Amino acid sequence: MKVVLLGAGNLAYHLFRVFEASVGVEIVQVFNHRQEKLTDFADKVATTTLIAEIKEADFYLISVKDDAIAEVSSRLRPKNGIVLHTSGAIEINVLAEHHNFGVFYPLQSFSREKEVDFQQIPICIEANSEENLEKIRQLALQISASVHKISSEQRRISHVAAVFANNFSNFMFSTASEICEKHQIPFDILKPLIAETFQKIEKVSPKEAQTGPARRNDKETMAAHLKYLDEDQQKLYKTISEAILKSYGKEL
Amino acid sequence: MKVVLLGAGNLAYHLFRVFEASVGVEIVQVFNHRQEKLTDFADKVATTTLIAEIKEADFYLISVKDDAIAEVSSRLRPKNGIVLHTSGAIEINVLAEHHNFGVFYPLQSFSREKEVDFQQIPICIEANSEENLEKIRQLALQISASVHKISSEQRRISHVAAVFANNFSNFMFSTASEICEKHQIPFDILKPLIAETFQKIEKVSPKEAQTGPARRNDKETMAAHLKYLDEDQQKLYKTISEAILKSYGKEL
Repeated sequence: MKVVLLGAGNLAYHLFRVFEASVGVEIVQVFNHRQEKLTDFADKVATTTLIAEIKEADFYLISVKDDAIAEVSSRLRPKNGIVLHTSGAIEINVLAEHHNFGVFYPLQSFSREKEVDFQQIPICIEANSEENLEKIRQLALQISASVHKISSEQRRISHVAAVFANNFSNFMFSTASEICEKHQIPFDILKPLIAETFQKIEKVSPKEAQTGPARRNDKETMAAHLKYLDEDQQKLYKTISEAILKSYGKEL
Repeated sequence: MKVVLLGAGNLAYHLFRVFEASVGVEIVQVFNHRQEKLTDFADKVATTTLIAEIKEADFYLISVKDDAIAEVSSRLRPKNGIVLHTSGAIEINVLAEHHNFGVFYPLQSFSREKEVDFQQIPICIEANSEENLEKIRQLALQISASVHKISSEQRRISHVAAVFANNFSNFMFSTASEICEKHQIPFDILKPLIAETFQKIEKVSPKEAQTGPARRNDKETMAAHLKYLDEDQQKLYKTISEAILKSYGKEL
């Protein structure tokens, strides 16, 4: 399978690496409209800054910022290849001007410095036809054992869920570390507890794993905790505690 | 070192196991005021339901509910041993009627079903004298490589931080799973993302690891996300997003 990769961000970087290492896929070219973004790729693969020079391929993988997908897509003129984007938030129809199109969305948070194991990463796929879906599935299976057909709507919703699971949980750790810092407590002493939090939901659902003062409706402890928090942290503490209480059928 | 263990909850259960397995500590007796709570221990160690029958030991480890610590302590009459409690929330002076007393607080969330590796668990210790602190440190080092002297105030604050790091982060996973369930998306597809969240803060601080629409001040995505949430989830989403924006110096 021949792939042209369009984009040079974190995800494009990781996709390049994993496809290069796979047996069944060849990256034939990397496109970016800025030459300096292509330096990482230039010694490994053909590169271009011109849409007109893009080669024939089975897949055109557009991995650029959400608001640039439509424009990059509109300038592509593939003969038979399938045009794909890799975004969690953009619906499939932004590519509808093409004959063959779809979505190839790896549900993961990527950073340049950190290696990831694609075998474990869910690839959420969607296509304009059953035939194309099957081709995209074959592409995805080259790099991951976890390939899921989901609709544009479900993909957007999984993106919302991911904000809670990733961004918001990280902010809880961030707030914990702020509280520790302010009182000269090393944040590291919370690391085993954080590890346990993660390990627990491997075994039971997060709903069952919930513990703490709000879960127990322990008003005394909750009131005592507020004394140690600044105004913004208090607002967080109260809002989340109220949501926990409500979710377990209790009233503050 | 001889230890009498008072209590039979999750923590007492795990402390019994880890001390039994250690070379330098002998549990000489387990006390609980209810006979049926002692059945797990009865074939392994002397047990009693009577405070008056408690044996001589170097340490009396009170591992009962927070609001029962004062009462159990008041009925103890140790000759020379050190009276300890194991709570994150209760200050050391609840034990001040004794000659020798202190705190032995393992900073972890314990459940009966799940084994834990005590070597990694921070034991937060405090004592009424330098001499007793050293003895408690020796006891703690029998089971953990991570022993920390922290004050009652710091211990309470670390407990608040733990609520964010453990209870609140778990509630973020719980909310994510609720959103998935409602829309027939398997929660499992978020597991690798959750694992990445956790692995990332092993390498960089959570403050640096923060990503997502609120971190980028991406108003369009945040507005779009709200459509998929119920009223309670919207309140959470807004409050946490505002806190993230504020924390990174941006205004909604």
